[in-house]
Amino acid sequence: MDDSSTNLDRGLLVDRTPFPEKLDERLRKQFTFLIEVDQLKAILRQSPLACVERRENDAEHSWHLAMMVALLAEYSDEPIDVGHTVQLVLVHDLVEIYAGDTPLYDGVAEADQQGREQAAADELFALLPDDQALAVRALWDEFEARRTPEARFAKAMDRLQPLLLNWMARGGTWQAPGVTADHVRSRKAVIGDASTALWEAGRCLIDEGQKRGWSRSGEPPQ
Amino acid sequence: MDDSSTNLDRGLLVDRTPFPEKLDERLRKQFTFLIEVDQLKAILRQSPLACVERRENDAEHSWHLAMMVALLAEYSDEPIDVGHTVQLVLVHDLVEIYAGDTPLYDGVAEADQQGREQAAADELFALLPDDQALAVRALWDEFEARRTPEARFAKAMDRLQPLLLNWMARGGTWQAPGVTADHVRSRKAVIGDASTALWEAGRCLIDEGQKRGWSRSGEPPQ
Repeated sequence: MDDSSTNLDRGLLVDRTPFPEKLDERLRKQFTFLIEVDQLKAILRQSPLACVERRENDAEHSWHLAMMVALLAEYSDEPIDVGHTVQLVLVHDLVEIYAGDTPLYDGVAEADQQGREQAAADELFALLPDDQALAVRALWDEFEARRTPEARFAKAMDRLQPLLLNWMARGGTWQAPGVTADHVRSRKAVIGDASTALWEAGRCLIDEGQKRGWSRSGEPPQ
Repeated sequence: MDDSSTNLDRGLLVDRTPFPEKLDERLRKQFTFLIEVDQLKAILRQSPLACVERRENDAEHSWHLAMMVALLAEYSDEPIDVGHTVQLVLVHDLVEIYAGDTPLYDGVAEADQQGREQAAADELFALLPDDQALAVRALWDEFEARRTPEARFAKAMDRLQPLLLNWMARGGTWQAPGVTADHVRSRKAVIGDASTALWEAGRCLIDEGQKRGWSRSGEPPQ
């Protein structure tokens, strides 16, 4: 890949079947973005689904997090605005459309993750009308910064959901090479920044999984 | 299939890897429901994705509708509560986990759709703690009844989203046997109950698609 090329150079999904010129310009931008983000459905995560034997994609994951926010908000240690938190999880993975998924236990990919994702956000959100580009960017920045109770709870759901899927799979990504139960514990501890009760439940599942041999004992990799 | 069997007779997903008994009972019910609804990711719709060549599943579709609500709410003819409308689309297809997807142009499956879906709702939502079972049921009932501006807008998104995907596919399900452009127009007209502007855009795409030969001319089937 040429380093100077951008995703826009490679073309948009909508270029394959452009919308009629007579559509209102603002609406055409919104439709263009809504078609471009269809690609979230093709970004595979590491997590195994509970219902069938395949990996989860980012769109399914985002829907699942939104359901979790709606049903588990009562466990937030601080009051949160549920509707706003749902918006954070709906958009939190959009940048992966251009930047790709960075697996939780992949230290190498993690090193340049932030730069790749910032560039992806610049390109992707610019497809929207300016006011909405700013609004979606603000949601994504808020999620990343984790400075609001809503962002902390959204992040907690982002870590708790694969934990539940790994439990159902009796290990799942806990069994990836080099990953130990302590490593899992340290990466999941951010759940406790949002909810004491949910982190207690999460730890219970990690502990029980380790006891059953679904994860390795030993020191986390440095 | 034995007519008297229920989905619960066939067992829950969580039965494959039950959560530890020491988890709080209320939280265990919520986790049980959140795992059961993982099945939404395995329910295939008729719509083709824009990004890759496969059909869309209900979880991806629900996420996409939520994004559309957030970005297109400005076109609602009546003021709507965006957060509430997002909740309606997040849960609107859950009953299909037990009742299956009913394709939009399938008159036979449609005949007993309501009974199947009511029974599915009774079973599925009962997994939640009582207060949340009532709340999710109320959301689903509201979506189905279409008596609030939020429910009408949610329904409009449910019809507009596959229209956009069919446009991208240069026909998609518009080319299913027996389906004509007039049939598409009549099934999509509910978009106009929520938004004059979006229905104008929808009609523009259907008209243009028919002109390009992506759908059949002629009377809709009775």
